[in-house]
Amino acid sequence: MPEFELLRHIFAANPGLDARVLIPPGDDMAMIDVGGAGHGGRRILLAVDQLIDGRHVRLEATPIELVGRKAVARSLSDVAAMAGRPLASLAAVTLPRGFGDHRAKALFDSMRATAEQYRCPLVGGDIAVHREAQHPLTCSITVLAEPLEHPRGPVRRDGAQVGDTVYVTGWLGGSLKPDGLGRHLTFEPRIDVALHLASSLGDRLHAMIDLSDGLGRDAAHIAELSHVQIELDAARIPCTGGCDWRRALGDGEDYELCFCADAGAPVPAQLEGVPIATVGRVVPRAAVSDPLVVVKDADQVIRGESLGWQHG
Amino acid sequence: MPEFELLRHIFAANPGLDARVLIPPGDDMAMIDVGGAGHGGRRILLAVDQLIDGRHVRLEATPIELVGRKAVARSLSDVAAMAGRPLASLAAVTLPRGFGDHRAKALFDSMRATAEQYRCPLVGGDIAVHREAQHPLTCSITVLAEPLEHPRGPVRRDGAQVGDTVYVTGWLGGSLKPDGLGRHLTFEPRIDVALHLASSLGDRLHAMIDLSDGLGRDAAHIAELSHVQIELDAARIPCTGGCDWRRALGDGEDYELCFCADAGAPVPAQLEGVPIATVGRVVPRAAVSDPLVVVKDADQVIRGESLGWQHG
Repeated sequence: MPEFELLRHIFAANPGLDARVLIPPGDDMAMIDVGGAGHGGRRILLAVDQLIDGRHVRLEATPIELVGRKAVARSLSDVAAMAGRPLASLAAVTLPRGFGDHRAKALFDSMRATAEQYRCPLVGGDIAVHREAQHPLTCSITVLAEPLEHPRGPVRRDGAQVGDTVYVTGWLGGSLKPDGLGRHLTFEPRIDVALHLASSLGDRLHAMIDLSDGLGRDAAHIAELSHVQIELDAARIPCTGGCDWRRALGDGEDYELCFCADAGAPVPAQLEGVPIATVGRVVPRAAVSDPLVVVKDADQVIRGESLGWQHG
Repeated sequence: MPEFELLRHIFAANPGLDARVLIPPGDDMAMIDVGGAGHGGRRILLAVDQLIDGRHVRLEATPIELVGRKAVARSLSDVAAMAGRPLASLAAVTLPRGFGDHRAKALFDSMRATAEQYRCPLVGGDIAVHREAQHPLTCSITVLAEPLEHPRGPVRRDGAQVGDTVYVTGWLGGSLKPDGLGRHLTFEPRIDVALHLASSLGDRLHAMIDLSDGLGRDAAHIAELSHVQIELDAARIPCTGGCDWRRALGDGEDYELCFCADAGAPVPAQLEGVPIATVGRVVPRAAVSDPLVVVKDADQVIRGESLGWQHG
């Protein structure tokens, strides 16, 4: 069962989610109300993400510093997707037996440095060791963030509206090279871009997600939760050199942002040096059998949500 | 390198820990200041803990419900150690390939139920799958809690004072049976006991830790951080039936509390149905070569900190 469906099952009928839970599981981050002396309402965003050797990184082919960097940057990308400001992070790591103190220190040092670079200090951790040397390295990174004071609160997945324009940041596709290296190890979580968009567009910024599974699948998450269809123009997808639009939609691991904003909103062509491309529009979804995402390529209309990449 | 030393190295010279970090790594939980509209100072406790098949549980010998329960209860025991009130939790799980949807759901259902039982709703999660069926199940549980309004703030490890009396809750030793079952799967995190102690003793409750590595090692953490020695009376250790004091000190996985309070503080003999035993006292530690923990057994004085159990 794919992760999304399993998580949905798990959290679907959750009577225990009490009044403190302002955004339940299903978005890039959850949000809880942690109260506060004398006045309630301090809101905190929370998420956890994992990096597993053999799934998200190939340890034997990758400098250990980039492994630690990616582990933290993946979780920071979730903060960007909500237009949050990082607060703090925690790392739980299980090392293969015999991993070595030197490499373990290098791994944690890079996690710490990446966390600090994005003002998300690593305040705690847990280290365990597997029984076997061939059991894979597993890193789990929790991030806390604060939502931007924004008319709509944090930017969620479920707010896309018919008539919105759909955008993506950066260039898509080819992030994971055949040798295991590539941009998936060095991407910049788009925190500053997201904060800039959320503060400048205000309530004209309707929905946002970060692209980990590929634009096809990730746009489908927005479409499904917003009860709309997303129509993408193949010719407008910003493809990395050497990638066609199918790869750009399906490769995954881009860690760019996809967002939907009011068609008249003043979205710049670039922000903080990052290009922003118009890639489509939000249209009504007449029937539940209709695709969540379609791609228009010349005269063809292709169902888009199955083009994304499913992590194991 | 043992976890404690590695974590200490990692966080020792951490220039990035900024003013928001009120309790740095090294205690049962970290504490950060998450601010708040119009007035700063909302404080949040944070910790992460892992449960790994083959290290903390034997999956093939254990009902899956107890695996999920233990994963969450271990982290809740950290909340108890700080006298915190649970706020929310997150679960990151890597399943062996072919684990099965049914077992995955049962695992998450038990994590969720345990979290809810202790008012710590599971608000987010991540699921990944290993490449191989023999790669071990790994669960990482993050907990957020709020510190009790207490004259000294949350109860830390570093506040023990010479002259204090040392206490433990419950019965120690024999938690992990040879067949892999036992109390380590069914223990109650001592959250209510800790809250009761912290609110009734106020600033006479000086230091606290939960017992995961065994009283020998865990008392040594208090002693080291408080710059004192802890002297335990072998005859007063509350041993589980069938265990002598050496096993009670060394077995680990008790998840009871050890705390130090002013010698005159009114500590009851039991709280919430849990017995509380006086087990020793805090004395000066004259030289760094002196033991952190000694056990007095009739005429013998035994170095105590090496009796605990070191998780892999």
